[in-house]
Amino acid sequence: MTGESDFLASLRPLAAAAAARGLADDAAVLELGGTRLVLTHDMLVEGVHYLPADPPEDVAWKLLAVNLSDLAAKGAAPVGVLMGYMLGDNAWDRAFADGFGAALRKFGVALLGGDTVAAPAGTARVLGLTAVGEAKGPVPSRSGVRAGDVLFVSGTIGDAGAGLRVLKGELPASEALAARYRRPEPRLAAGEALAPLVSAMMDVSDGLLIDAARMAAASGVRIGIDLARVPLSDAFRTALGDAQGARLDAATAGDDYELLFAVPPERAATVAALADLLDLPLTRIGAASAGRGLGLSDGGETLPLPERLGWEHG
Amino acid sequence: MTGESDFLASLRPLAAAAAARGLADDAAVLELGGTRLVLTHDMLVEGVHYLPADPPEDVAWKLLAVNLSDLAAKGAAPVGVLMGYMLGDNAWDRAFADGFGAALRKFGVALLGGDTVAAPAGTARVLGLTAVGEAKGPVPSRSGVRAGDVLFVSGTIGDAGAGLRVLKGELPASEALAARYRRPEPRLAAGEALAPLVSAMMDVSDGLLIDAARMAAASGVRIGIDLARVPLSDAFRTALGDAQGARLDAATAGDDYELLFAVPPERAATVAALADLLDLPLTRIGAASAGRGLGLSDGGETLPLPERLGWEHG
Repeated sequence: MTGESDFLASLRPLAAAAAARGLADDAAVLELGGTRLVLTHDMLVEGVHYLPADPPEDVAWKLLAVNLSDLAAKGAAPVGVLMGYMLGDNAWDRAFADGFGAALRKFGVALLGGDTVAAPAGTARVLGLTAVGEAKGPVPSRSGVRAGDVLFVSGTIGDAGAGLRVLKGELPASEALAARYRRPEPRLAAGEALAPLVSAMMDVSDGLLIDAARMAAASGVRIGIDLARVPLSDAFRTALGDAQGARLDAATAGDDYELLFAVPPERAATVAALADLLDLPLTRIGAASAGRGLGLSDGGETLPLPERLGWEHG
Repeated sequence: MTGESDFLASLRPLAAAAAARGLADDAAVLELGGTRLVLTHDMLVEGVHYLPADPPEDVAWKLLAVNLSDLAAKGAAPVGVLMGYMLGDNAWDRAFADGFGAALRKFGVALLGGDTVAAPAGTARVLGLTAVGEAKGPVPSRSGVRAGDVLFVSGTIGDAGAGLRVLKGELPASEALAARYRRPEPRLAAGEALAPLVSAMMDVSDGLLIDAARMAAASGVRIGIDLARVPLSDAFRTALGDAQGARLDAATAGDDYELLFAVPPERAATVAALADLLDLPLTRIGAASAGRGLGLSDGGETLPLPERLGWEHG
């Protein structure tokens, strides 16, 4: 999408402040007084980031969760949010507000403010959220991976993508997969616990392979991903199996909102211990080496990169 | 617009944090580790908040300026912004980015981050901005007016509303008025200087009368506005004259982005001195008394309130 690349290229010189991290990270990091603020803004567009038939409560959850996922990737605890809301159908709006309230309570986040607007008829609903978090320790970036680091991912990959196909009627019904598309879980506790240990961390929103490629590019290393190690859920295996094609689907589907992170090899045991403590799978899926770009294998076999690594939108 | 009132009523219980100020102020005030952050989020919708034919550079300016105006009303200095941008036509996007950069430089504000999205065809462009500011001193609210206070407004009122009519072809061409609609001036220096002096302050965005009525309601006082004292520009007088009807137009038009504030009467002289220092008119337009609601007069004559006080949108 060259329009977006052009636009971001025009904006990058405006983001000269160190806090902006060159617009290439999940969030901005602003040191003010003695406080380390982490700020992110993500939008959802009806028909692009959620399905028009998705329940409003789930859309509300997703709007909050995708932003909290950016905070999680930076090891920040959420403080509050400001929402930009486009009014539409009254019943939908009310259900959205109920769901948004439930999600805020679940994550212990305050609604600080925002704006509501009416929109001309025929306009797709556009929702924006700014999340403000506070980091007590170091804030990992995407660019810190060093050759020799091992790569991990949290949870399971590909469920949300399969869930979208379920909801479109392309796969048999599966509540587990649909829920993973509609209600991503921001990995806040894991992000906070991992932040002091990792060389680099980001959330997987556009697809494991494309996000790993971005991490490799930002860090100036080569990242190799072993498809055979990509963690799949039972629901995913039931729907799509775990052959190479299914694994490629999982690794390029996006909407996972899991954490992708790199640690020096001597910390791999600490990560394993943390996985037990958090009751969350943290799976070793690859390693970084000197070089550039992304490498893909399946067990011992080297694979060519698929043409599409994930979503190219921002 | 009952949809919006319902929606805000549903959200208000979620905004229990003191920082949210009950969603009834221009901005949220977040105290974090010795730092007093002021946060606001305002959106612009094509065809609602700006004209589709407005130059993209001016839309960029306006998106920044309306948010900085909220910071000004809270006496905060801007630190940075996060933008939610809907991509459209490439040339428009590029011109917007140029204009946005120029506006950021003019106000010394950093772009910290944000999101870009594509939208389905036919969707009106929706832009969102979160502005982060820092207040070194007290942060005035809308609710601090006391009986006996005098009311002031900065700059001139009604120009932007007249400018919109110029741009719609309803009034003869006037660059000065059109510029006031397209390029509002956030009163940042005045806001910072006034914050320690005022009992209450807000920006005038929806119309002087409706915003004064909101200030009266929030403060639990009656506010009387003297139409004869409402400051009009030469350009406004040329276009519309200064008879009572024109003054009512000015006071209900909105988009002024001037500061409305109350001070105890003994500080009126300090305000006058500040106006000289800032080279910005600060005009006494009324007073607060015990009671409720808004009162309107024109010189000595008491007037009934007009049916429409300003824009009811948020």
